[in-house]
Amino acid sequence: MRIQVPREKAYLLLNHGPTTLVTAAHGGRANIMAVAWAMALDIDPPKVTLVISADSFTRSLMEKSGEFALSLPSTEQVDLTLAVGHSSGGDTDKFKKFKIATFPGSKIKAPLVEGCLGWMECRRIPEPHIEKTYDLFVAEVLAAWAEDSLFGPKGWTFREGLPSTIHHIGGSVFTFPGGMLTGKKL
Amino acid sequence: MRIQVPREKAYLLLNHGPTTLVTAAHGGRANIMAVAWAMALDIDPPKVTLVISADSFTRSLMEKSGEFALSLPSTEQVDLTLAVGHSSGGDTDKFKKFKIATFPGSKIKAPLVEGCLGWMECRRIPEPHIEKTYDLFVAEVLAAWAEDSLFGPKGWTFREGLPSTIHHIGGSVFTFPGGMLTGKKL
Repeated sequence: MRIQVPREKAYLLLNHGPTTLVTAAHGGRANIMAVAWAMALDIDPPKVTLVISADSFTRSLMEKSGEFALSLPSTEQVDLTLAVGHSSGGDTDKFKKFKIATFPGSKIKAPLVEGCLGWMECRRIPEPHIEKTYDLFVAEVLAAWAEDSLFGPKGWTFREGLPSTIHHIGGSVFTFPGGMLTGKKL
Repeated sequence: MRIQVPREKAYLLLNHGPTTLVTAAHGGRANIMAVAWAMALDIDPPKVTLVISADSFTRSLMEKSGEFALSLPSTEQVDLTLAVGHSSGGDTDKFKKFKIATFPGSKIKAPLVEGCLGWMECRRIPEPHIEKTYDLFVAEVLAAWAEDSLFGPKGWTFREGLPSTIHHIGGSVFTFPGGMLTGKKL
């Protein structure tokens, strides 16, 4: 079941480095792309930073609306993640083409992707210099959500045989969490 | 065996979101800390971006020297990663205290950590505004290295039962890659 993640726990969604799907909407158009270079930037208020290439249609929608969503795809969405990463939404409706179901956010107009394991509704904090120089964006997380069977007050718990986040290795290859390791005091 | 990673493949070390150990040295002092919020920022020339809190001794050494190294700890170094993350190097030599073996970099003076699986020698690109506002640093990767049993021209290959990178969940808990998934064209 999808539950709301408390504001000060939102960073835990990204702590372990999952690949993300970025969605944005503006003026009746919406688009989706895959972004592996996204990470937490602050705990409270929660912030994220991510790289969005200059020629992407999602970026133009995000810049116009000032908003975007991050959805964290599951091990069952590897093909979908590759598909939206390898095509442009400028002349195609990727949601239709790849039959991607979405649901509305609570704070922003960008759609959130069904079947994912975690979600963040984000508002861009304009930082023109790093956007232009590095394609690097900073955003505040206005609301966060997660599948409660996998995410609790201490963050994710991954178990063999259950869906998990995916983590881009390169090309069409991903890895995924294989279990949990708890450190001891040295 | 440790091999040099070609410049344009260095980003693959961080693509899947591993936790890092950051080392820096200046004026006869060196220090080490754990950083989960580090990611690739560019392919060629390779760049990284990472969050280093303002009160850390490693940050002061890094700011004075303009250099730091990222070492990617393995599943055998979880306790070490926690230990250096939970203590300050201002009045302790963490390398001695935790018996951390290092080897010299090829381009920078910061030490690289033995037993890790990948390494990046980095030179800070000064970005005062985001450093001050978000504790966010940008750096160019001058040289990169990896264990060749796990890292090849297409990036990491993780297999069950072998060491792998670790990925911070929260508190003293980490996850680790459980295998590989190759996507198909939709």
